[in-house]
Amino acid sequence: MKASPSQPSSPFPPILPGATLGMIGGGQLGRMFALEAKRMGYRLAVLEPAADSPCGQIADIVLERPYEDKQALSELASLSDAITYEFENIAADAVRYLEGLGKPVRPGSRALEITQDRWLEKSFIRDLELPVTPFGLATTASDLATTLRSARLPGFLKTSRGGYDGKGQIGVSTPDQAESARQSFQGAGLIYEEAVDFSREFSLVAVRNPEGQSAAFPVLENQHRHHILHRTFIPGRIPPEAARQAESIALAIGRGLDFQGTYCVEFFLTRDERVLVNEIAPRPHNSGHFSLDACSHSQFEMQVRALCGLPLVTPRLLQPAVMLNLVGDRQGGRLDGIADILRVPGVHLHLYGKSQVAKGRKMGHVTVMADSLEEAIRLTDGVEDALSWG
Amino acid sequence: MKASPSQPSSPFPPILPGATLGMIGGGQLGRMFALEAKRMGYRLAVLEPAADSPCGQIADIVLERPYEDKQALSELASLSDAITYEFENIAADAVRYLEGLGKPVRPGSRALEITQDRWLEKSFIRDLELPVTPFGLATTASDLATTLRSARLPGFLKTSRGGYDGKGQIGVSTPDQAESARQSFQGAGLIYEEAVDFSREFSLVAVRNPEGQSAAFPVLENQHRHHILHRTFIPGRIPPEAARQAESIALAIGRGLDFQGTYCVEFFLTRDERVLVNEIAPRPHNSGHFSLDACSHSQFEMQVRALCGLPLVTPRLLQPAVMLNLVGDRQGGRLDGIADILRVPGVHLHLYGKSQVAKGRKMGHVTVMADSLEEAIRLTDGVEDALSWG
Repeated sequence: MKASPSQPSSPFPPILPGATLGMIGGGQLGRMFALEAKRMGYRLAVLEPAADSPCGQIADIVLERPYEDKQALSELASLSDAITYEFENIAADAVRYLEGLGKPVRPGSRALEITQDRWLEKSFIRDLELPVTPFGLATTASDLATTLRSARLPGFLKTSRGGYDGKGQIGVSTPDQAESARQSFQGAGLIYEEAVDFSREFSLVAVRNPEGQSAAFPVLENQHRHHILHRTFIPGRIPPEAARQAESIALAIGRGLDFQGTYCVEFFLTRDERVLVNEIAPRPHNSGHFSLDACSHSQFEMQVRALCGLPLVTPRLLQPAVMLNLVGDRQGGRLDGIADILRVPGVHLHLYGKSQVAKGRKMGHVTVMADSLEEAIRLTDGVEDALSWG
Repeated sequence: MKASPSQPSSPFPPILPGATLGMIGGGQLGRMFALEAKRMGYRLAVLEPAADSPCGQIADIVLERPYEDKQALSELASLSDAITYEFENIAADAVRYLEGLGKPVRPGSRALEITQDRWLEKSFIRDLELPVTPFGLATTASDLATTLRSARLPGFLKTSRGGYDGKGQIGVSTPDQAESARQSFQGAGLIYEEAVDFSREFSLVAVRNPEGQSAAFPVLENQHRHHILHRTFIPGRIPPEAARQAESIALAIGRGLDFQGTYCVEFFLTRDERVLVNEIAPRPHNSGHFSLDACSHSQFEMQVRALCGLPLVTPRLLQPAVMLNLVGDRQGGRLDGIADILRVPGVHLHLYGKSQVAKGRKMGHVTVMADSLEEAIRLTDGVEDALSWG
């Protein structure tokens, strides 16, 4: 466990099992949090406008109302002993409003404000003197021109807010392409980031509680397909020195944000073995799902502990593993081959209760554990062969 | 995996995630089943007369009606794609009624009938030529006298039905004590069992699916306190030859019952290292709870797989572990020390959502995992020191 120096303790006492935890957002991250919280004896209230959501299927109480409806937020606060959210695209205003209602809201609005805006996030990382790829504002033609005087091409134009899984970004190789990409975003706040010549993408999930105690999971190696996480390899095949740097960077980011909860830092390993921060997720991360099966403690249990002001412990890897996302390949399909998948030793199936398959929609994941990473990869290849979207 | 020879396959096709599983009984066994089923993408309907039950807190649909209410059973069947139960004290008639409604009911009424009656169960084990402690009928004075001509004292008078956790049994050392114990049961069906001079109590959890495929968990060593399971040690400190015998006995019992689901066989290891069957639980067992944390697959995932007619795999122990039951020590108490427990590395907390503590009531359990069983025991001692019922 990496315990940082003791800090002023939280104004709130620990929240013990039997209490009700409030969750904004009804997706799979909320669902897995809810399953872990229930195992530990908590109740769940969720605010989610969509009916029959993945998290709503587990929760004790579902408020089917908009995320930013103040009356719904007040109701959630009155039902809950502590509140969190499962995604960073909720308005910081809503979180600030909740914070005024006298219940712990973790992570707080400041961490959210920074991490939901690429420009603020990258600036924050740079200000901590942590390594980040060159970037700059690109909202106006003049912003972009200024940025391209110091940052090099090729690179990406990205919306500063709301992008995920490759949405809200365009790769560009020339100033003209960059300018035309800028115009295609029709006035959204934009940043430009230099493309990184990387050999690996990896991530590190960490957790920090209100007392400032923190802990890190093992380093994770990620493979994307069509900009969506496809496989995570644990332990990541990352040079030990780079892994140590990543852990130290992730913990520094947690301290810098005074973060309270589980979070993830995504990194690039450049071909010359430098570590660069790519982005921060102020919540459990898809790459950390393996921890439900292959770790002594999951990223969601750690989220519960941090939210409730409870002690953290260092999660230990129990076996090498591969996490494979089950991503829909077209509208209205159906996942076939489940019985065959379940024949593979070391397979753990997680499905999110989504009734409609859609292209690019995360329907579930499997974790495949084995005595070696090579064996887990071989078994995962078998799982992928058995799967189809009928 | 111990696959028995292939058998006529089930008349029902596999039941895939998205389907609704029906559970009779709303206790903690149903709750842990529900959490595992939800993780795999199933829906849950539960029949349980008590409001706010441990399993009802997880289920999608709760029928708050008596277990044996035929209309409620019909409704459960119409809501569910397959049905199981979490305890053996439901009337076999109710299960037989459900079987007539055209949905798979697993385990079926025959396995239930045998295992819910000590006399039928012991006779069944003896008829399979498996080792069981001497026993006999003791319902009438004449039954008892006949039994005591071949079985030795001391021993136990036990109700043939409905006993659990030491309820419904009286230890006796003389024929007079035996007769007076018999009379105190006021006409209930009784059996007499010889006391066993054992060095260890242990158990083995196994699973069998409708195709006759079966798998066994590692052997578990159990310590009781006031007749209630107190700690389970994994792997059990049982001589390897005795462990092999136990596995072979448990699998023979599964075949003999044509069992479909997760079950547990409890054993005595005598001082001269013989293995005797004590009893059979036709469902997941308290001693198998460790598998949620310390095994590649849990006894509840296996129950889901068997219920749904899906393939089984051999569960693997990931780390040595101790399971410690959290049993209430008096009416109206409260579990204190949770934050201290969570500081112990390798601790996994499971609480069942029961709002009222009572003496002898199982409120939850912890699993403590470590690199060695000795270390897990040392850590568990620390957990027990930290716990109190305030």
